[in-house]
Amino acid sequence: MKVALAQINPTIGAFDQNLLKILNNIDQAIQQKCDLIVFSEMVLTGYPPKDVLEKQEFIASQPISQLINTVHGIGVVCGWVEQSENHLYNTAALFKDGQILHKAYKRLLPVYDVFDEQRYFKAGDFCDIFEFNGHKIGLTICEDIWNDPDFFASTSYARDPVKEMIDKGADCMINISASPFHLGKRSLKKRMLQTLSQKYKLPFIYVNQVGGNDSIIFDGTSMVFDSTGTMVAQGRDFEEDFVVYDTVSNQGICHKISDSDEASVFKALVLGTRDYVHKCGFKKAVIGLSGGIDSAVTTAIAVEALGKENVQTIYMPSAYTSKDNDEDTQKLAENLGIPRKIIPIDTLFDPFLNALPDDFCRDSHGLAEQNLQARIRGTILMAFSNKYGALVLTTGNKSELAVGYCTLYGDMNGALALISDLPKTLVYALSRYINQDQERIPGRIIEKAPSAELKPDQKDQDDLPDYADLDIILKAYIEDHQPIDRIVDMGFSRSLVTDVIQRIYHNEYKRQQAPIGLKVTSKAFGYGRRYPIAHKASWAYSK
Amino acid sequence: MKVALAQINPTIGAFDQNLLKILNNIDQAIQQKCDLIVFSEMVLTGYPPKDVLEKQEFIASQPISQLINTVHGIGVVCGWVEQSENHLYNTAALFKDGQILHKAYKRLLPVYDVFDEQRYFKAGDFCDIFEFNGHKIGLTICEDIWNDPDFFASTSYARDPVKEMIDKGADCMINISASPFHLGKRSLKKRMLQTLSQKYKLPFIYVNQVGGNDSIIFDGTSMVFDSTGTMVAQGRDFEEDFVVYDTVSNQGICHKISDSDEASVFKALVLGTRDYVHKCGFKKAVIGLSGGIDSAVTTAIAVEALGKENVQTIYMPSAYTSKDNDEDTQKLAENLGIPRKIIPIDTLFDPFLNALPDDFCRDSHGLAEQNLQARIRGTILMAFSNKYGALVLTTGNKSELAVGYCTLYGDMNGALALISDLPKTLVYALSRYINQDQERIPGRIIEKAPSAELKPDQKDQDDLPDYADLDIILKAYIEDHQPIDRIVDMGFSRSLVTDVIQRIYHNEYKRQQAPIGLKVTSKAFGYGRRYPIAHKASWAYSK
Repeated sequence: MKVALAQINPTIGAFDQNLLKILNNIDQAIQQKCDLIVFSEMVLTGYPPKDVLEKQEFIASQPISQLINTVHGIGVVCGWVEQSENHLYNTAALFKDGQILHKAYKRLLPVYDVFDEQRYFKAGDFCDIFEFNGHKIGLTICEDIWNDPDFFASTSYARDPVKEMIDKGADCMINISASPFHLGKRSLKKRMLQTLSQKYKLPFIYVNQVGGNDSIIFDGTSMVFDSTGTMVAQGRDFEEDFVVYDTVSNQGICHKISDSDEASVFKALVLGTRDYVHKCGFKKAVIGLSGGIDSAVTTAIAVEALGKENVQTIYMPSAYTSKDNDEDTQKLAENLGIPRKIIPIDTLFDPFLNALPDDFCRDSHGLAEQNLQARIRGTILMAFSNKYGALVLTTGNKSELAVGYCTLYGDMNGALALISDLPKTLVYALSRYINQDQERIPGRIIEKAPSAELKPDQKDQDDLPDYADLDIILKAYIEDHQPIDRIVDMGFSRSLVTDVIQRIYHNEYKRQQAPIGLKVTSKAFGYGRRYPIAHKASWAYSK
Repeated sequence: MKVALAQINPTIGAFDQNLLKILNNIDQAIQQKCDLIVFSEMVLTGYPPKDVLEKQEFIASQPISQLINTVHGIGVVCGWVEQSENHLYNTAALFKDGQILHKAYKRLLPVYDVFDEQRYFKAGDFCDIFEFNGHKIGLTICEDIWNDPDFFASTSYARDPVKEMIDKGADCMINISASPFHLGKRSLKKRMLQTLSQKYKLPFIYVNQVGGNDSIIFDGTSMVFDSTGTMVAQGRDFEEDFVVYDTVSNQGICHKISDSDEASVFKALVLGTRDYVHKCGFKKAVIGLSGGIDSAVTTAIAVEALGKENVQTIYMPSAYTSKDNDEDTQKLAENLGIPRKIIPIDTLFDPFLNALPDDFCRDSHGLAEQNLQARIRGTILMAFSNKYGALVLTTGNKSELAVGYCTLYGDMNGALALISDLPKTLVYALSRYINQDQERIPGRIIEKAPSAELKPDQKDQDDLPDYADLDIILKAYIEDHQPIDRIVDMGFSRSLVTDVIQRIYHNEYKRQQAPIGLKVTSKAFGYGRRYPIAHKASWAYSK
């Protein structure tokens, strides 16, 4: 049996466009004489549609009948949402020549991090298998395969659909997924699929969605492992792809995927940025350049994602801006082939100080005066956005966002935060990756001490711990849920760790008004991390 | 048996403070010779703690053992979170004299609107009853009683814990809740409790949390219905209370609660505002006054919530501001006894226009120029917030927020949006309620045509449908999930309804960066309404 793995990038609710992509892939599979073509989870609707699923019209608009009736001469496995007796099911079906031959409802419905599937779907009861082209196939949807008790130290669900299907005689497993990317997840997934195929001695065919949808990035990287646990087919990462695997000859195409964290993250952010901007109906972006590394890396990603003709930068110096930054941002813009506009802000800062009460003054260098400068810059960027129809891309990193070293309605202004899930240390690593073939980001931008430049001679490290330390503490607390004692045991003073944890809680209000940020770690701020603002967090750090 | 209903206002994570409130209420119950005192759902932790529940230290910090061991001579029903075998349970327990006599795990875990309980908790299996002081008691937690197949047209859960317990012989039902307020819910709840007590011919004791936690407001209004369905006890709404009911004499105290939608909403917003500001550790607020009704109503609520000594207003006129507004805002500030500061913005608007490219000019009256003015005002408010430690309260209503008639990083700047879940028509109704005894809001503010005043002679109704029509369409689409055809059948043109629906989807990006808004309807924007930004919504309005 020749199986095509169709790894496409649907847009949520764009039914016509998604259908067209599906039909084009089916044509290609027919041309290549495939017996079966497999699409990803909820490929017809795009994933995740969230509360749009509560709209009856949305469910009814899925062109599933049209799709089923259009296709002839090939079996198709496709994900969509079926309504039955007042319940919605996350559904996969095999159809051929106008007939549905088999249907599977997703059994394991995740409700952690960015997932809310029990909010929308009823879990499937049945773990039937079906015969197709001489194979007994077990059809599973994403989470259904993530519950193997031998692979995971602890399992989250009572059932194991994989085992149930194999107990019923399945000789080939197909999984259709919309499994978001984060660092470390792909190697885990690969090991899991390999372990499962070795354990059960049968092939696993895994088709994953690709593309960005708001904060979530799907990496594609569809895969086939044969019954010995050998990878025999692999789709590209972070782009659409179409690969064929033959169950009889055990032959398939294995495309290369990115081979480092930096390469993966770069591709992820490029895809996430491009899809967000385009799926929102925009082409152009505008970015405030400071002369620092965050805005430089953000701009390099934006240029790769949108094309240099679509990226405008604005440099907004003040009396506190180091002279180097003019040269450095000019060089950066030249290297990337993009325009840089200069708008000094002191002619705006002074009128504000004059209009405000006497407590406000330039020489106080207080928080209010510092934030005022950031907000003037944010307002200028939004003026460009409104006038020229370009989305503002914000430049803050995860370390800053965690401890609140950023100005709400200032540098946080924008539609999308490209690097808001990248710890500062990863921003540095990414800058070196971006420069690997040629210097795109001027060396001095990478080497200079980070500074907000909102008062004279300000440096980030006057107010924050060393980023190398800060990032370790943040990961331990936010991603790994380590308690304070354990983090102190890693070699940090209790006062430092306490200070960082306090800042995390204290700045939740800023994050809840932050733009959407592209998720690349196991725990990003935003939709997958839901904290109250008004609460006491002293339990988190007091003995 | 004398039962005390303890309706208290816990703060999430404030374990010491919550424990103290609980112990004070227990002392009062002992003084009044009660046999049993009942607290609300998760009273020890506050509700909803959201992802804080994923922190092991949070769970371990609950002073439940201390509470159990401190209390003697009275039975206590108390809600907290128990960890058992790697699962968390939303737990209610009865303890007395250092012993837990009975424990119930919440069986029905809601995952709709603002609720994510299956994200955190495992559902309880057991529906045991227990004997206490001669009664056979069935102990349920919130949602457990919201699944009666005779009362609801369709039910959401397979089990009905109430029936199961009564089948086991319960003669008295106790429910502890953290059930949020929204308009229309209390009469539904009252009817449901009445229907259940009549159907089963036994008393229902219902204790609800009170207080605001971020966007959610709990109204208290604890109740007892006797075995004939007669209400025999009721706690006050929107404040802490303590009422006693005697099962033998069937006597209890029935406090009055607010008797109109306007009265309920006013109390809800006052409580939500006060709790948000205080639980965040602030006392003071600052509000931008425009001369319009939204800022006037917001200010009146803030004064009631925080005290007039804690509310600062700022009036920021421009060349487009009607002269009446100076007088009207001055009168409003006088009526409410609060200061009003005047900061004209033209001295800031002009420098921005000069600093920006030539495409920006005063006479274009374009969107960019309009937003610029709103952002200057928002920046001034934030400068006050930063300098004087006062939270900015935003003034936008739900109708505006729905269709995006508001400026991100402008008038949307602030910590809390008091009236962002109030349709404009309800804002008007509330203004009349606020003025019922004396004119607090000057009549001219209520009577004038609403205007953003960002260009000459601008009126809301130049850009928007009549608010009376708009609000009906918005409720039908957002709260009631009516499809477009049904809304057209209500008497609106298809082009109008299509335009409104398009605007709702198109402006999702603004709402995702909006401050927290106080929820008073069945579907508020924010945490309980989760929509993607980057998606195509043409399925919603195309034929």
